[in-house]
Amino acid sequence: MRDDHGGHLRALAAAARAAPEELLDFSANINPLGLSPLVEEAIRTALPSVVHYPDPSASALGGALAAYHGLSHEQVLPANGSTELIYLLARALAPRRALILHPAFSEYEAALELVGAQVDHVLLDEAHGFLPELSGLLPRLAGYDLVILANPNNPAGSLISKPDLRALVGALEAAGASTVVDEAFIDFVEDSSLKQDLAQFPHLLLLRSLTKCFALPGLRVGYALACAELLSRLSCWKEPWSVNALAEAAGIAALADRKYQASFRLLVPRWREDLRSRLEKFAQLRVFPGVANYLLVRLLDPGLTASVLKTRLLQERIAIRDCTSFRGLGPAFFRLAVRSPEQHTVMLDALERCL
Amino acid sequence: MRDDHGGHLRALAAAARAAPEELLDFSANINPLGLSPLVEEAIRTALPSVVHYPDPSASALGGALAAYHGLSHEQVLPANGSTELIYLLARALAPRRALILHPAFSEYEAALELVGAQVDHVLLDEAHGFLPELSGLLPRLAGYDLVILANPNNPAGSLISKPDLRALVGALEAAGASTVVDEAFIDFVEDSSLKQDLAQFPHLLLLRSLTKCFALPGLRVGYALACAELLSRLSCWKEPWSVNALAEAAGIAALADRKYQASFRLLVPRWREDLRSRLEKFAQLRVFPGVANYLLVRLLDPGLTASVLKTRLLQERIAIRDCTSFRGLGPAFFRLAVRSPEQHTVMLDALERCL
Repeated sequence: MRDDHGGHLRALAAAARAAPEELLDFSANINPLGLSPLVEEAIRTALPSVVHYPDPSASALGGALAAYHGLSHEQVLPANGSTELIYLLARALAPRRALILHPAFSEYEAALELVGAQVDHVLLDEAHGFLPELSGLLPRLAGYDLVILANPNNPAGSLISKPDLRALVGALEAAGASTVVDEAFIDFVEDSSLKQDLAQFPHLLLLRSLTKCFALPGLRVGYALACAELLSRLSCWKEPWSVNALAEAAGIAALADRKYQASFRLLVPRWREDLRSRLEKFAQLRVFPGVANYLLVRLLDPGLTASVLKTRLLQERIAIRDCTSFRGLGPAFFRLAVRSPEQHTVMLDALERCL
Repeated sequence: MRDDHGGHLRALAAAARAAPEELLDFSANINPLGLSPLVEEAIRTALPSVVHYPDPSASALGGALAAYHGLSHEQVLPANGSTELIYLLARALAPRRALILHPAFSEYEAALELVGAQVDHVLLDEAHGFLPELSGLLPRLAGYDLVILANPNNPAGSLISKPDLRALVGALEAAGASTVVDEAFIDFVEDSSLKQDLAQFPHLLLLRSLTKCFALPGLRVGYALACAELLSRLSCWKEPWSVNALAEAAGIAALADRKYQASFRLLVPRWREDLRSRLEKFAQLRVFPGVANYLLVRLLDPGLTASVLKTRLLQERIAIRDCTSFRGLGPAFFRLAVRSPEQHTVMLDALERCL
């Protein structure tokens, strides 16, 4: 288990000698709209049910997810956050050789190493907007059982086009290899999901989460979408009761809250644009275009690192994600969550003082 | 993942064509006192925190558990129910040959088979009250890397004496083998826990849970107690964020609720005695003495199985645990949870009609 993640607010607060609620958190990519009132109400209503065991496979949540995505129940596997699925797929697929496209969530590599896979790495190029170049990538795929990538990329925010992604997955399918596409942040660009292609790609596994777009990271609600045969293989390795009763109730309520969904689809792009345009006024920064609820930023002054900036901003009670630990990035990169324009103002004023 | 467990109330209710809340549930071993009001309050208070990631290793809960048991923080590992720990220990210890004392929770075997262990079985004898006979057992331990047993046994309710258990663990330690003692139901007889012996037994792993004695099965709060070195080995295989924010808050509140703890330590033995003495009046039943919040019962009429009785009782809206699926028991055994004397009356009246 690693501790080098963003969003570890208690640790950040301790470093700032502040209480967690005193920090303005730009380090975790959580929907700035906060908890949906309907979700909160559903949790309160479900509270008495904690005296009963949850359904071992969270089947009511599975059914709700299937209906939400227009898929069959057998194409959905709910889990205790997508982290459970990352470790589960490593065990169930047991790849000998795996390839990860970076920058990427560090848990992919940790999970693959635990099952003894040989893990290789492709570093996506800043000059190409952290997008894979198919002409260079396709010839490199031979011999891999499994390729993992995120779409949109986290922390870069870049989105692979559907044709490119289909070409990549198709090439791996033809070789009998599996593709895992982490769609944790695709809710903000739902049309870009490969969920309608599952029947065509029997070795494609999509990782999804209600954590980010419904602001529920504390509850751990992730799920996989894939063809029934692949999920049935994963289920053999799955532990029962991993989704707790309140997480299941919250997930079902979140999927039903169409008003909240309409709000974040409207506001997050608008607020992201606010953040991007205001960041671009800083001559000391390069801002990468992103399609989700966060932006990757590069410090152009070689004398200043993201680690130093993070420490300075913490003194101003603002948390950012230093991206030094991501393979393929380095000490100049940091990530900012999209929040409200008012919160952007507070953060940007502090940033100006710290640069 | 198996579905042959007790406590799957929705499935039982569906079979009874009733809503889950219409069933009187004697199938799940949950504290009859129900949810502590302080725990419920703690969950409500923690609700706004679900917009933040939980601590990756639930360290506040770990600290509270350590203080509660008088152990160091390094001797405690919180988890998403003890089920997460059962699968985790199988992966981390990776035994070649394992021995399970039955009757036992079916997940031990499922988890060991997933990691390719050869699993052998000792069937505890009804004639000896489902307790191990050391003279026969000790010579059988040679060649095993891991032995798993529950104390108290579930579903038998039998409690191994501390001297016998120390002799068993000591023999395994001497051979370099690990012992897992599932203490999920030991809170009702806390003095019988081996938790003070951890320094002496570096290969001993105790599985504990807040699920049963605090009536929190819907939240999934389990933990392991062991020496720091052994838990550090398990931690390498542990996934981050597996305990969700509300489960952590509930667990901390439960440990602080001394009044609730005093109540269940007083009332559960009294109510168990009520249930036992009233069951013993049935000539058709043999009742086994139990130390926890459930009793194992055998049907003496060979013409009636627990499966048939379960179906008949479900028509009366009462759920029991048919123990046919437990190794070493068979079709005559069922388990009843201890509930309040008033609920016993309702169940026993129905039982009389069904026998």
